[in-house]
Amino acid sequence: MSESPDVLIVGGGLIGLAIAWRASGHGLRVTVIDPHPGRGASWAAAGMLAPVSEAHHGEEALIRLNMAAAEAYPDFVDELEAETEVPVGYRRCGTLMVGFDADDVRALHDVAALQGSLGLAVERLSGRACRELEPMLTPSVSGGIHVPGDHQVDNRRLVHALTVAVERRATLLRQRVTGLVVTGDRAEGVTLDDGRSLHAPTVVLAAGCWSRDLPGLPARVRPPVRPVKGQVLRLRIPIEPALFGGTIRWLVEGSPGYVVPRADGELVLGATSEERGFDTEVTADGVFQLLRGAHQVIPGISEATLTECRAGLRPGSPDNAPMLGRTAMEGLVMATGHHRNGVLLTPITARAIAALLATGEVDPVVAPFATDRFAAPAAPA
Amino acid sequence: MSESPDVLIVGGGLIGLAIAWRASGHGLRVTVIDPHPGRGASWAAAGMLAPVSEAHHGEEALIRLNMAAAEAYPDFVDELEAETEVPVGYRRCGTLMVGFDADDVRALHDVAALQGSLGLAVERLSGRACRELEPMLTPSVSGGIHVPGDHQVDNRRLVHALTVAVERRATLLRQRVTGLVVTGDRAEGVTLDDGRSLHAPTVVLAAGCWSRDLPGLPARVRPPVRPVKGQVLRLRIPIEPALFGGTIRWLVEGSPGYVVPRADGELVLGATSEERGFDTEVTADGVFQLLRGAHQVIPGISEATLTECRAGLRPGSPDNAPMLGRTAMEGLVMATGHHRNGVLLTPITARAIAALLATGEVDPVVAPFATDRFAAPAAPA
Repeated sequence: MSESPDVLIVGGGLIGLAIAWRASGHGLRVTVIDPHPGRGASWAAAGMLAPVSEAHHGEEALIRLNMAAAEAYPDFVDELEAETEVPVGYRRCGTLMVGFDADDVRALHDVAALQGSLGLAVERLSGRACRELEPMLTPSVSGGIHVPGDHQVDNRRLVHALTVAVERRATLLRQRVTGLVVTGDRAEGVTLDDGRSLHAPTVVLAAGCWSRDLPGLPARVRPPVRPVKGQVLRLRIPIEPALFGGTIRWLVEGSPGYVVPRADGELVLGATSEERGFDTEVTADGVFQLLRGAHQVIPGISEATLTECRAGLRPGSPDNAPMLGRTAMEGLVMATGHHRNGVLLTPITARAIAALLATGEVDPVVAPFATDRFAAPAAPA
Repeated sequence: MSESPDVLIVGGGLIGLAIAWRASGHGLRVTVIDPHPGRGASWAAAGMLAPVSEAHHGEEALIRLNMAAAEAYPDFVDELEAETEVPVGYRRCGTLMVGFDADDVRALHDVAALQGSLGLAVERLSGRACRELEPMLTPSVSGGIHVPGDHQVDNRRLVHALTVAVERRATLLRQRVTGLVVTGDRAEGVTLDDGRSLHAPTVVLAAGCWSRDLPGLPARVRPPVRPVKGQVLRLRIPIEPALFGGTIRWLVEGSPGYVVPRADGELVLGATSEERGFDTEVTADGVFQLLRGAHQVIPGISEATLTECRAGLRPGSPDNAPMLGRTAMEGLVMATGHHRNGVLLTPITARAIAALLATGEVDPVVAPFATDRFAAPAAPA
């Protein structure tokens, strides 16, 4: 381990790892600290890259960030795969969103109208056209919209590739950070669970939903993140015949769900959204709701093998957007609160934060997501 | 390991382990061989001891065997717990069988009539009376029957206790048997996957659904067992308050299911019944059917944590009854085909087979379950 890193990163999920990789590309000496790198939300996630199908009214700035993130993906993946020789399963497979009853389809058409008004590519489809695209769909599907630009990445392979890259170029310390070291009004390092302290001119807080609870973090820079539990199942189907064209998302009587098909026959079925503190237990109800939705929309999924039930904690934020950049505390930078979009926002977060660390410049694309926007009196509630 | 055992037992599930324990009590030197003792059907099982609620028309001899097995349980448990100091979770908690709609209740009342005609203790209950007994039940339950004499044991603790007992008194070899050694027309031993052979005057075949496929076993003594896959879930609820009085079984529009509540807060939710060869994969459909039944009958179960999804293979037999005793081959004894009743029949099987091994006498209670009853021309199809 380098004796005097330039940057300490608290949290080795996709965000922390990717920042470390990019920052090392700027010549910075980086140490990432995480007892279980990539095993939090990054591991539970499904890997949908869905700037369009996740677009919501009132979140136009976030949609722009998400679109920029999707555009950054191909180069990010190419570079990472070339460097590590680890394929990350980036698939430009498109996403079909389907509705079960007329209300569900109406809700999807509302989304499509918003997306169209923002210049995003979407196409309305009849139920029959949906089934032509994805023959596994039930005939009960009433209609849907096709989003050709929403892709996927295998988030677990991405964790693996970034871990390989970071272990080559930087230091990955599998320990728990027990506190922030503050001298005067300046962040100067962290303490570890083995009693040691590490020091560096800059500390990056990238600990997902745990970011607000770092001991030593003063209240005025504490990010308003909260854990949003998501339960996710992993299933397996034969590769041949290829049963799915791409990601399928659905609304069944207002309840959303999705299946993300990997090239190797894995299906990721998600996801619940619950606020229950830091609880990560898989519940009978969560699994039942996921399977029920999938059975209703894709009856043939019943033949799939169920290989994993898991829950992860998304780092929720008050406006569903991340907190990116400098904080009111000297030496402390933040990259947290990515909520449902952590995988998607990994490349652009890494690029912007690494540039900030190396040059002090704030990338305009992340400027609307300053870390102090909730602290100011005029901030939205 | 003893150099010259009296008995080799192929298969270390509950049946094989319990025979070994009892036979060692007769002074026999026993070696049990199993690569993963107790990790087949014995591990997947729920541990219902249900001679009454499992009673079916046309199986009167089996019902008598099951009743005798249930009567043998308390002494068997007392002796095993005293010897090993391993509590096995034997609970005299009774079983409530409930029906969802009128047809389901009618089907239960038919079962109750059969049970009553056999002198078994059952009581018909209204839906309200069912809910007074088990307040977690949905108000949609139409009625049911209470079977006070159907109890439960924690089959995994029972595996543990028997393993401890066998390792003290006999030899437990964690290896795979690769074949039966036959000399002339006599079984004389087995071969192991490390290339060794073991020899003994008697070989007991207690390998559950794998019993018919032991290499070297001649066709005329091959038991007609087949794998009957069962998927089972394990859930967890708080111990306080005690939410369940005892085992609950149900029929929902003809589909059966059950929950067996352990004293430590574990709930065992079962079980599918499928014939798919030796496949032990957990499927989306299996888990969905189990959770759907439970949600319909016990809505509050949705709060439970889901801790395990598993499939096991019951050793099915043509008449749902086991094959117990000598075979047409000298030196070969059989104890297999216990189908849904392996946990229940463990004490009585062990007692009868151990006595046979020690004295040559056939216990009258197992006489109707001779191993050659399917081979004879007059055997039922």
